[in-house]
Amino acid sequence: MIKVIILGSGNVGTHLFKAFKNNIDIEIIQWYSRDLKNINQYSDVVKITDELNELEVADVYILAINDDSINELSSKLPFTNRLVCHTSGSKSINELDSKNRQAIFYPLQTFSKDSEIDFTKIPLCLESFSSKDMNLLKNIATTLNCDYYEISSVQREKLHLAAVFVNNFTNHLFTIAKEITDESNIDFDILKPLISETVQKIYKLDPKEAQTGPAVRNDKETINKHIQDLKSNDHKQLYKLMTSLINNLDHEKL
Amino acid sequence: MIKVIILGSGNVGTHLFKAFKNNIDIEIIQWYSRDLKNINQYSDVVKITDELNELEVADVYILAINDDSINELSSKLPFTNRLVCHTSGSKSINELDSKNRQAIFYPLQTFSKDSEIDFTKIPLCLESFSSKDMNLLKNIATTLNCDYYEISSVQREKLHLAAVFVNNFTNHLFTIAKEITDESNIDFDILKPLISETVQKIYKLDPKEAQTGPAVRNDKETINKHIQDLKSNDHKQLYKLMTSLINNLDHEKL
Repeated sequence: MIKVIILGSGNVGTHLFKAFKNNIDIEIIQWYSRDLKNINQYSDVVKITDELNELEVADVYILAINDDSINELSSKLPFTNRLVCHTSGSKSINELDSKNRQAIFYPLQTFSKDSEIDFTKIPLCLESFSSKDMNLLKNIATTLNCDYYEISSVQREKLHLAAVFVNNFTNHLFTIAKEITDESNIDFDILKPLISETVQKIYKLDPKEAQTGPAVRNDKETINKHIQDLKSNDHKQLYKLMTSLINNLDHEKL
Repeated sequence: MIKVIILGSGNVGTHLFKAFKNNIDIEIIQWYSRDLKNINQYSDVVKITDELNELEVADVYILAINDDSINELSSKLPFTNRLVCHTSGSKSINELDSKNRQAIFYPLQTFSKDSEIDFTKIPLCLESFSSKDMNLLKNIATTLNCDYYEISSVQREKLHLAAVFVNNFTNHLFTIAKEITDESNIDFDILKPLISETVQKIYKLDPKEAQTGPAVRNDKETINKHIQDLKSNDHKQLYKLMTSLINNLDHEKL
């Protein structure tokens, strides 16, 4: 049994709790939140606390807290030389106080409270300073049935940047598309199969090879009509920029 | 039996042929291509021709050809007053010569030859000038088991614009993300579950509500680090523009 303590009760902490709770190889020793009311509902199935001084001994302490609190909370931990990891995509391993053994346990996924998630489909990015600690993290990943990758802090920063493009920015493109369909009284649902297929293609083709549309064909008539049709100047600018990026890339390819 | 003639042997024409071929309610009378070698392989199962003068009588003629050829080909058809539709997202119904009964049969999906597709998952956008013609198009959609929508040419232009955002531009974001991961020797596969979940969310939440990330949190430290990390100036500009669009929208919401 791997003894785990979770610190933090946000989306990541809550999803981790649910993934660990039903796992026979993992024992959740405690769940810490600075605000007990967030986790009170789980007090029947796990020991909860809002006091760092009450933290018990565990194999690993997982800090699933805001990026900006990692440094402070890790330095307030009332023990040393234990394995402490954070779950942030953008903070270095050195953000953790070095009085404990620092590590990273970063689930690369978008979490929201409303949305149930199959934890086994989440890739885990792991980092540590010793092979013994790395092995413990790998054991947790394996027992959760997750794919895992050894990713350095420098790589993780790049990966987080790439994640912003594929998740945050992509989602904003969907928002713009919904604005366009709403304005014309078109049901946004019509676009959903196209969106799903756009993603399915990356499992079969390099995205560069999968590129289609007026930009890649340099279909100036359609491009100009589209720019005219867009109402906001920012959207016109975005359309022009994306079109020129796609078009340049295609010329590179030829 | 609905008698259909397909004109064109590109991706859309080929996928239509495959969808119609196994359908007991549809009879493919002929398949026309100006270049017979594109469809020669199907000559055992369908009559093929490269001569407009050889076209037989059918209930509907579906022009699955380049946008720029629609007007010319439709005016060269050696008959009048028959139902002729095109499959383009961006061309008006009036692009078709009015000597025949004009209509639209636009499958809103991204097609590529390499990628098999479940035709029943494709929404069909239909338009015509008479209810009789519309009913025939609806019958085809129903027999294919497809969702269909009556969409005017004006709406279709907007829908096509929205499709460019969710498909072409989204795919280019994936391309940029792959560039970033490739440069840092990170396996692009790590991002695929995140990409899938980004899309799954639109089935549950309005994309505006699903927005997460440094832009929405106005996390300036991460944003500046990301802009610094990007190598190309165009990508920096894109990052800034998307970030400001997401951030502005969030302020509107509050």
